[in-house]
Amino acid sequence: MNVGLVGVTGYSGSVLFELLLRHPNVDQVNLYGHAQTEAQSLETVMPQLRRRDNILPYNPADIMKNNQMVFFATSAGVTTELAKPFIDANFPVIDLAGDYRLKSRDVYKKWYKKEAPSTEYLNKSHYGLTDFTSSKGETYVSNPGCYATSTILALAPLVQNHLIDPTSIVVDAKSGTSGAGKKLTQLTHFSQTNENLQLYKVNQHQHIPEIVQQLQEWDENVPYIQFTTTLLPLTRGIMASCYAKAKSDVTEKDVRDAFVRTYSDDTFVNATEGVFPALKQVVGTNFCDIGYQLNPVTHQIVIVSVIDNLLKGAAGQAIQNFNQMFGFEPETGLNLIPVLPI
Amino acid sequence: MNVGLVGVTGYSGSVLFELLLRHPNVDQVNLYGHAQTEAQSLETVMPQLRRRDNILPYNPADIMKNNQMVFFATSAGVTTELAKPFIDANFPVIDLAGDYRLKSRDVYKKWYKKEAPSTEYLNKSHYGLTDFTSSKGETYVSNPGCYATSTILALAPLVQNHLIDPTSIVVDAKSGTSGAGKKLTQLTHFSQTNENLQLYKVNQHQHIPEIVQQLQEWDENVPYIQFTTTLLPLTRGIMASCYAKAKSDVTEKDVRDAFVRTYSDDTFVNATEGVFPALKQVVGTNFCDIGYQLNPVTHQIVIVSVIDNLLKGAAGQAIQNFNQMFGFEPETGLNLIPVLPI
Amino acid sequence: MNVGLVGVTGYSGSVLFELLLRHPNVDQVNLYGHAQTEAQSLETVMPQLRRRDNILPYNPADIMKNNQMVFFATSAGVTTELAKPFIDANFPVIDLAGDYRLKSRDVYKKWYKKEAPSTEYLNKSHYGLTDFTSSKGETYVSNPGCYATSTILALAPLVQNHLIDPTSIVVDAKSGTSGAGKKLTQLTHFSQTNENLQLYKVNQHQHIPEIVQQLQEWDENVPYIQFTTTLLPLTRGIMASCYAKAKSDVTEKDVRDAFVRTYSDDTFVNATEGVFPALKQVVGTNFCDIGYQLNPVTHQIVIVSVIDNLLKGAAGQAIQNFNQMFGFEPETGLNLIPVLPI
Amino acid sequence: MNVGLVGVTGYSGSVLFELLLRHPNVDQVNLYGHAQTEAQSLETVMPQLRRRDNILPYNPADIMKNNQMVFFATSAGVTTELAKPFIDANFPVIDLAGDYRLKSRDVYKKWYKKEAPSTEYLNKSHYGLTDFTSSKGETYVSNPGCYATSTILALAPLVQNHLIDPTSIVVDAKSGTSGAGKKLTQLTHFSQTNENLQLYKVNQHQHIPEIVQQLQEWDENVPYIQFTTTLLPLTRGIMASCYAKAKSDVTEKDVRDAFVRTYSDDTFVNATEGVFPALKQVVGTNFCDIGYQLNPVTHQIVIVSVIDNLLKGAAGQAIQNFNQMFGFEPETGLNLIPVLPI
Repeated sequence: MNVGLVGVTGYSGSVLFELLLRHPNVDQVNLYGHAQTEAQSLETVMPQLRRRDNILPYNPADIMKNNQMVFFATSAGVTTELAKPFIDANFPVIDLAGDYRLKSRDVYKKWYKKEAPSTEYLNKSHYGLTDFTSSKGETYVSNPGCYATSTILALAPLVQNHLIDPTSIVVDAKSGTSGAGKKLTQLTHFSQTNENLQLYKVNQHQHIPEIVQQLQEWDENVPYIQFTTTLLPLTRGIMASCYAKAKSDVTEKDVRDAFVRTYSDDTFVNATEGVFPALKQVVGTNFCDIGYQLNPVTHQIVIVSVIDNLLKGAAGQAIQNFNQMFGFEPETGLNLIPVLPI
Repeated sequence: MNVGLVGVTGYSGSVLFELLLRHPNVDQVNLYGHAQTEAQSLETVMPQLRRRDNILPYNPADIMKNNQMVFFATSAGVTTELAKPFIDANFPVIDLAGDYRLKSRDVYKKWYKKEAPSTEYLNKSHYGLTDFTSSKGETYVSNPGCYATSTILALAPLVQNHLIDPTSIVVDAKSGTSGAGKKLTQLTHFSQTNENLQLYKVNQHQHIPEIVQQLQEWDENVPYIQFTTTLLPLTRGIMASCYAKAKSDVTEKDVRDAFVRTYSDDTFVNATEGVFPALKQVVGTNFCDIGYQLNPVTHQIVIVSVIDNLLKGAAGQAIQNFNQMFGFEPETGLNLIPVLPI
Repeated sequence: MNVGLVGVTGYSGSVLFELLLRHPNVDQVNLYGHAQTEAQSLETVMPQLRRRDNILPYNPADIMKNNQMVFFATSAGVTTELAKPFIDANFPVIDLAGDYRLKSRDVYKKWYKKEAPSTEYLNKSHYGLTDFTSSKGETYVSNPGCYATSTILALAPLVQNHLIDPTSIVVDAKSGTSGAGKKLTQLTHFSQTNENLQLYKVNQHQHIPEIVQQLQEWDENVPYIQFTTTLLPLTRGIMASCYAKAKSDVTEKDVRDAFVRTYSDDTFVNATEGVFPALKQVVGTNFCDIGYQLNPVTHQIVIVSVIDNLLKGAAGQAIQNFNQMFGFEPETGLNLIPVLPI
Repeated sequence: MNVGLVGVTGYSGSVLFELLLRHPNVDQVNLYGHAQTEAQSLETVMPQLRRRDNILPYNPADIMKNNQMVFFATSAGVTTELAKPFIDANFPVIDLAGDYRLKSRDVYKKWYKKEAPSTEYLNKSHYGLTDFTSSKGETYVSNPGCYATSTILALAPLVQNHLIDPTSIVVDAKSGTSGAGKKLTQLTHFSQTNENLQLYKVNQHQHIPEIVQQLQEWDENVPYIQFTTTLLPLTRGIMASCYAKAKSDVTEKDVRDAFVRTYSDDTFVNATEGVFPALKQVVGTNFCDIGYQLNPVTHQIVIVSVIDNLLKGAAGQAIQNFNQMFGFEPETGLNLIPVLPI
């Protein structure tokens, strides 16, 4: 099949392009630039991809004519408008941006400082959290955010099984700089970032409402959670260190059973009691590795999840959604080599 | 005055040596190696120090004869024995190791897996947390641990003023590799550590009881706290990200007042509401910078403190204790240049 | 087909294993440990590989019975002995170690400080520099060293075409720490390596005679070259910055023509005039990218080549040799995703 | 005495400010911003300096009235104009920029792509290479460039003593990112720079003519040298790896004697035969450490020098010039602690 990709020049877009080129069910990837009016040589703007493709001008009719589906790997706020003709036409879209993830227009506006899509359109969007839902039969899939993925996967077994006091949740999330994208900023200037740790968007990160929206689907008592983000002096990877108080009668076995039940059949999530994953063990792969432990002294549960923010946190999960949408095996196109040595 | 230093070859010891060489009240630093039976050239083992000194064989009588005080920068477990003749003689000691920090022999044994000093000796040791006590008049000063310093300074205003639910404390502490010392380990092998984050000693770090001991002096209701340690891919610095629930009637003003009252006259601790410090801004200095904020949504307080683990977390605080012990001005010998650019 | 792999626990071995698992012509990879007497679970020693295989005890007869060929990814000096039964049996071997690369026993002994294999065995070894020779029909292939590959590929067009004064060659080669392997050493301790550059084995690196041996095949006037190695604070990649004086009548066009002629049909080597490659653009891939420029002022030619030391410099080139040996297409199993973003 | 400083907000300027604050002969440092028309709070723009000073508007008359000398730490091209009134008034200036370093206006224009100062003004400028000249009695001192300092110090003993073929010189220089300054660029974006090596300004670096100008003062036969610059994934430090062919009758002893004669009495330069310095051993200090070795096989001499680009390569050498200008001891204000551990 032919697929379209809008936004190849961004970090997620270029990784997604590499995955699609190697996907056995994809015959051709057509590239589109939403801000272009004429074709542009990919080699000129991204020589590192070693490809002769052109990035074509953006035209919804052309995209729908020449492809069976389209990926948007554009910045937040862009797909709100761009997606409309595709939604109207029930044309399959997988959207890596945040525009259609939140069901509440007010919440979107508050956290993204932008106007949300209309409720009618929002209602057609499916939140593609691949380990808990399927995109089969969906036409508009909102691919989850990177911090959201790592945090939700860490907390899901505990929230779904009501094992914790939901008001006690604390998430100390850390990300490499590729999460901040290609744009030059003071925060990601090498001389400043190197040998440093910097908090940013404290209590204001736009993935907070996304996490809460999902957790509340599982337990309506979950309030807004305490969530901080720290920028790491490394390029790829997210570690979400999560803490929550176990309910008073919860035992180690209850916790273990919840994680085993939830993830033992999952292709890409591995949860292990008492063994905390190193960030690098998932970099270059689509895995989410989780370690958890009930501290018998504090009766708090520590859950640490790690993902590659550009794979399981973006392009990799987008391929999972693509596989679900079109009925391919879950691991198709995702048998990736980790960045060894660890 | 002349001072002795045992353990110059370790990371803390070598930084302490550099500070002492520049301290205006120190005439001479005599070096001793506790495992040596004959003098050794410092240049041979540590050419980077560019010094011609000898490391002399360890002999308590000689040390007491030729110096007015002595620093121990040796590994945990070593000073338990080494310190005895000095304690017996009431000879001034500043001990950077953990052996004499904990008042309970059982607690020491449990966390350090070693035999503790006798109660009689422990009682003579003063815990030199310089921002809250003075070592003036003390003869045996136990210099606080690096994680302990950063965590206690972050939590002190809240615990002392009973503003938080003490059972809700969560500390997510991160350290550079110099905290792990000079010893070659898998955890600190460059190919493994680089571009990575790794948790270690989860719920088992020996600074946990040290922190709790101090917090309980201020509020006996503080239980064992939730405390994790993560190894960072950088050399110097600790960030302690602390979380605690504010008591229900506590306001932003209460929190601010507590920090202002506690630290406004402190030479080396700076606390700012709503501005979270970057790790690198204290590296190379003896400062502890703290940012704090009451999250109005979660009613949790986030407190982030940063220190240079080898300075405020070791050798710098040792100099503070030295200044207190001998009546020098607090900042003497500690007017250090940060590792610019930040 | 089934292939054997001896030495999966090393860095090159584990990367090679990952490549072989994804090679479309490989049905099964059987692992062997040359120092083992009983089977060992791979998961125990290398959990990051997420595999249930066993590492089997080393037994040449078993290896030959159960596989159509075998890879050795063992340390220098080990295959000298291990390879004998395979050579005697004319069983196909690809050897990633240096033991059989040098044709002169004396040169091997001088640079490796070990006894070389016998001349009889050495004569059966083919130096598998894939871009200039083919391993088709060979049974014992010595896979080139990482520094040797990057340096020889950079200099080949100039030496083969006699465009430079061979006595003027200077190579300033730099490598990430994975080239130093898994062994814990002071040189690769994170606190020492990070934010540092360190020269090592100055004028003594064992790849020097390997480079010279190959260059002399092309031009017998090439003497021992000036070659230094510097350890970089990064994990993967080699950059070889090479300098040589152009002969007085050599023009820019002569240089360009030589590179174009040599590499325009090469699958994995890309040479560009006046554009110098960034190291990271080849990391995660089997490419060797080369930039070159004749400086009109100094009449020196600067040639900079970059490779991933574990791929084109080890496991990737081993796959190339495997493809040549068995008649598979050159890029089979080597369509790898770079470690984006660059 | 009071000193003025123009350009505290740049990397060199802020380091220079820290040094001046601790210099025992400096009573007050007055800050000036050349692009300002009103006073600005230093705390606002550079909170990491923890100072309450104001940056005052730029006014030559005020600067001369309130200070005994002035430092310029401004970008290339700025002091060409700014310096005029000070030169006219014979007021002492130490200029860290490149504007007045080159004696030839044409050479300046060619390499800097800017108009040079007039010959009259250029003639009043003294090139302050502190290890070979003295700024005593000078009023306008051009502080050498960072690459120039490291390269000239490495080559000086060989060039001065005519031990090498000057046409054979090759310099492979590497620098950390702080050398590229505070400006946000693609080249210094963390996600691009990290785990990478990148060449830049190949054969075009503006320090080339500066190096050649100085070497030609010692040996008029030195032509333009082969010189490349590579950006390192670290913040501070330069390593200049230099290569040159020894003249045919030159012995190891000749080389050693030249280095010993040249540097044995030098306060800040240490040269050692056969021991190559690690970059980090000078970071945080004003030292230049040099290792050298005559390779008996190639008869090439390898000389490797390391400096901290912001200290010996900028602000530290500026303090040396200041000490020379006003007759203070060479090491005054420069007894700095290295960034341990190494």
